[in-house]
Amino acid sequence: MHPKSPSESLTILTDLVLPSETNPLNNLFGGELLARMDRAASITARRHSRRVAVTASVNHVAFNRTIPLGSVVTIEAKVSRSFKTSMEIYIDVWIEDRETGIKSKANEAIYTFVAVDDSGRPIEVAPLSPETELEKERFDAALRRKQLSLVLAGKMNPHDATELKALFL
Amino acid sequence: MHPKSPSESLTILTDLVLPSETNPLNNLFGGELLARMDRAASITARRHSRRVAVTASVNHVAFNRTIPLGSVVTIEAKVSRSFKTSMEIYIDVWIEDRETGIKSKANEAIYTFVAVDDSGRPIEVAPLSPETELEKERFDAALRRKQLSLVLAGKMNPHDATELKALFL
Amino acid sequence: MHPKSPSESLTILTDLVLPSETNPLNNLFGGELLARMDRAASITARRHSRRVAVTASVNHVAFNRTIPLGSVVTIEAKVSRSFKTSMEIYIDVWIEDRETGIKSKANEAIYTFVAVDDSGRPIEVAPLSPETELEKERFDAALRRKQLSLVLAGKMNPHDATELKALFL
Amino acid sequence: MHPKSPSESLTILTDLVLPSETNPLNNLFGGELLARMDRAASITARRHSRRVAVTASVNHVAFNRTIPLGSVVTIEAKVSRSFKTSMEIYIDVWIEDRETGIKSKANEAIYTFVAVDDSGRPIEVAPLSPETELEKERFDAALRRKQLSLVLAGKMNPHDATELKALFL
Amino acid sequence: MHPKSPSESLTILTDLVLPSETNPLNNLFGGELLARMDRAASITARRHSRRVAVTASVNHVAFNRTIPLGSVVTIEAKVSRSFKTSMEIYIDVWIEDRETGIKSKANEAIYTFVAVDDSGRPIEVAPLSPETELEKERFDAALRRKQLSLVLAGKMNPHDATELKALFL
Amino acid sequence: MHPKSPSESLTILTDLVLPSETNPLNNLFGGELLARMDRAASITARRHSRRVAVTASVNHVAFNRTIPLGSVVTIEAKVSRSFKTSMEIYIDVWIEDRETGIKSKANEAIYTFVAVDDSGRPIEVAPLSPETELEKERFDAALRRKQLSLVLAGKMNPHDATELKALFL
Repeated sequence: MHPKSPSESLTILTDLVLPSETNPLNNLFGGELLARMDRAASITARRHSRRVAVTASVNHVAFNRTIPLGSVVTIEAKVSRSFKTSMEIYIDVWIEDRETGIKSKANEAIYTFVAVDDSGRPIEVAPLSPETELEKERFDAALRRKQLSLVLAGKMNPHDATELKALFL
Repeated sequence: MHPKSPSESLTILTDLVLPSETNPLNNLFGGELLARMDRAASITARRHSRRVAVTASVNHVAFNRTIPLGSVVTIEAKVSRSFKTSMEIYIDVWIEDRETGIKSKANEAIYTFVAVDDSGRPIEVAPLSPETELEKERFDAALRRKQLSLVLAGKMNPHDATELKALFL
Repeated sequence: MHPKSPSESLTILTDLVLPSETNPLNNLFGGELLARMDRAASITARRHSRRVAVTASVNHVAFNRTIPLGSVVTIEAKVSRSFKTSMEIYIDVWIEDRETGIKSKANEAIYTFVAVDDSGRPIEVAPLSPETELEKERFDAALRRKQLSLVLAGKMNPHDATELKALFL
Repeated sequence: MHPKSPSESLTILTDLVLPSETNPLNNLFGGELLARMDRAASITARRHSRRVAVTASVNHVAFNRTIPLGSVVTIEAKVSRSFKTSMEIYIDVWIEDRETGIKSKANEAIYTFVAVDDSGRPIEVAPLSPETELEKERFDAALRRKQLSLVLAGKMNPHDATELKALFL
Repeated sequence: MHPKSPSESLTILTDLVLPSETNPLNNLFGGELLARMDRAASITARRHSRRVAVTASVNHVAFNRTIPLGSVVTIEAKVSRSFKTSMEIYIDVWIEDRETGIKSKANEAIYTFVAVDDSGRPIEVAPLSPETELEKERFDAALRRKQLSLVLAGKMNPHDATELKALFL
Repeated sequence: MHPKSPSESLTILTDLVLPSETNPLNNLFGGELLARMDRAASITARRHSRRVAVTASVNHVAFNRTIPLGSVVTIEAKVSRSFKTSMEIYIDVWIEDRETGIKSKANEAIYTFVAVDDSGRPIEVAPLSPETELEKERFDAALRRKQLSLVLAGKMNPHDATELKALFL
C-alpha cells in the first residue's frame, strides 16, 4: 500500500468543558477526557486506514494539569506509526487562556487502534511516512513502546526487545 | 495512619451498554469504557482516602474483547497499593452471558489517583494492607509499575529501578 | 424450574451524582433516581430469569432523604419474590459520608418486571428461595403487595384478598 | 390562600423517543418514562405552588403498553389535590399513531411533590378547586390514596382510615 | 388533500433548563434552544403530514432574551403555511416567572420541514387553513419569506418576487 | 483595537454522528447540527473577542444534504465580519467518505454573537481584517446581511438599506 503522511489524517476536536463533565473540584473528569481523546483518535485511525477502527489499547496517560469548567480544549490526534493492521495514534491536548489567547499543553496520550473489516476482522493498513522532526522522533519511539507492550503482555522475551533493553544497560 | 484492606473500598458498578455508547460495529466504545472505569476508580480512591481524588494517570489498558450492545457490564475497582498521596487502583471488567449467566473477564486496567484537599493540594492517604493472594501479587507488581512510570517520565534513572531492571537481565 | 436464591442475581450500581442530574436545590432529581433504580432492577430481573425483562410496575416509592450533588450513591437490587412470569425486585439505596465513610439508607423502592421472549411475550421464570431473615420477610410481604395491586387495578375482589383484608379487620 | 383550578398548572411535554432511551426490544425504558413524568410533574407542582417543589413519593405505576422507538409521547401533568404542603400530581401519558394521528392512552401515574422554601423546608400551598367530572373524581380518590400511603408507612392506624376501610368491608 | 387547521398539529414542549445546557453565564445555550425548537417543530410537521419530516431550513432566529438556569421554558410549534411538500413551522418560546407565574415571550423562530416517504423522497402534504387573525397574518408572511429564501438562494429572479419587491419600492 | 485576521480564531470541531443524535431515517437531526455549529461558533467568537460571547441570532440555514449515522463531520467556524460589539461567524460543514476519504460540503450557516463582560453587558470587539478572496467576499456580504436583518426587524427603513436595495432594482 502507498505510504501516507501524518498530516493526511490529522484530526482536530475543539470543544468546551460543560458542567456535566466536571468533578467536585469543577475540573474536567479524567474519564471524560479519555473518552474525547478516544473519539478523536478513532477518527484519525479511520482516516488513515479508510476502515472502521477499534481501540486496541491505551498507553500510559498522565494527567498533569487540571482543566477547569468553561475551558476551550483542543485535541489533536495524529498517526505516529502504523504496523501491519494497527496504528499508534499520538494525541496532544491544549487549553487556551481566554484573555491572552495563549495555548498551553495540558496533556498527551497514546492510543492504539486496529483497522477491521465489516465482520470485525483485522485488515492491513497503509504504512506511515513521517515528515517533521517531531513526527520522526515519535515514529522511532513507537517501536520501543510496541516492544514494551509485548514484553509486559508476556508475548515477547525481554532479551529480544533489543531497542528497549538498551535503555536499561 | 491506620492501614486499610482493599475490600473496604471495593466499588462495583454494574450497568447496561446503551445504543448511544456504541461504535459503528455495535460494540461499546473504548472511550466510554475508559470513562466508566474512571468513575468507579475515583469512588474507590475516595473511599480509601475519604478525600476528593483526581485521576493522575492511566496505565497501559488493552481492549482484548469487544462488548456488544445490550451487555451487562460489571466494573470492580480496588486499591492495589497506596503511596504517600497517591493510590493505584486495579480495575477488573466482566461481562455476562444472558442465557447461561456465566461471567467472563473482558478487560482490566490500572488507574492512579491522588487525594487532594479542598484547594486541590495533594494530601496523605492511609497505607494498604493486602489480604488475598491476588491482592498481594498486585501490591508487589504496583511497585514495579511505579518505577516503570518514573523511568518513562525521565524522573528515575533506569539503573536505580532495581525491580524493573531485573526483568531485562 | 430450579429455585434460585436472591444473592444469585444481586446487582450493585455505585455511581456519583453529577451536576446534570440535580434540581435547583442541588440535590439528585427524583426522576433520575427512579431511572437508575429501574436500570439496576432490570439487570437483576434479567439475571434471575436469563431473559430480557421489562418494567411492569413501580410500587409506591417515598423520597425521605435528599441526595446532594457529588454524593456517592449505591443501589442494591434483589429479587424479593417471583411469580409465574413476573419478579418483584426490592431496591435499597445508600449514600455514604465522604469523611466518616458511614453508609446510611437514603431510600427503598419496589419494582415489578416481567420476563419476555424475543417477540415480547411473557415467559416463565424460576421460583425464588429466600435465605436470610430479611429476604423471608420481604418474600411474605410481596404476596400482600401483589394482592393490593390486583385489588387497586380492579382485577381481584377485596374480599378474596385474604392476606390484605386481615390488615383492616 | 386563594384556591386554584387544575387547568392553571397543567403541563404538557411532547417529545420523541430517541435511541438512547430504549431497551433491547427497542421500546422506551420504564426508567426513562419515570424520569420524564417526574420532570413534567415537578413543573406542574411549581406552577401551582410558585415554589421549588421536590418529589416526595411516586404512587403505584403500571406499564401496560410498550412505547416503541420513534414514537411521539405526550405527557400531561395536573394537580389532582393539594394538602397542607404537598400536592398530588396526576399524569396521563399518550402516544399517537403517525399515519392515522389517533392518540391512545399509554400510561398513567401519580406523584406527590412538596413545596419548599429556599432552605428546603416545606411551605404551605394553595388549595385545589377541581372543575371537570374527572378532576372531581381524582380529587376524591386522592384522599383514599393519602390514607393508604399513611397506613402502609405505619403512620396511620388502619381503623382510622375510614375511606379506605370501607373498600374491604 | 383535505386542508387542516394549525391547531390540529400544535405541539407544546414544556421543560426545565438543566445545568448541562447552560453557558458560562448560567443561561441556556443558544444551540440547545435551537435543538429543542427543532424537536418540537419536527413533531408538528409530522402531525400535519402524518409522515416522517426532516428539517429543510431554519429562518433568521434572534435571541433577544437570555433564559436562566432553572427556568421553565415552553415551546409552542404551529404550521404557519404548507407548500407542495414542505411546511413552514412558526415557533413561539415562553418563559415564566416562578413567583408571579407570569409568562413572557422569550423568542420566536421559523423552521421549514419537508415530508418524506420511507426512502427519504419528498411527498405531498395537506394544505393549511388558518383560522385566527395571527394565523392568517403568519400565513401571508410565509409567502414573502419563501420568495426571499428563493431569491437569496439564486433560485428566483428578484424581479419576479413581487410580494418582496414591493417592500423596497 | 488592533485588527485580527479570520485565521487567528478559526475553530475546527471534528466528531462522529452517534445513534442518539439521529432521526428515524438514521440521519443527523437538524437540531443537533444547529447545536454543534453554535458550540464551534461560540468558541470562534470567544477567540476573536477574548470575552464570553453569546448567540445573538442565527441567519437562514439550509439543510441540503442528509448526514448519515456514523459519519465523520467537520465543522469549521470563522469570523466573517465584526461590528461594534458583535461578530458574524461563517460556518462550513463537511462530511467525508470513509472509503475514498473525499470531503464534501454538507452545509453552511451564519451565526451572530455578541461579546459580553462578566455582568452580561455588550463590550467592544476587535475589527476583522480579511485575507483570502473568500474571506473578503464574505466580509462584503456580511454588511448586506446586517442591513437585511435590520430591515426585517423593523429597525432600518428599506430605502436606507442601500446595498440591499440595489439587489431589487
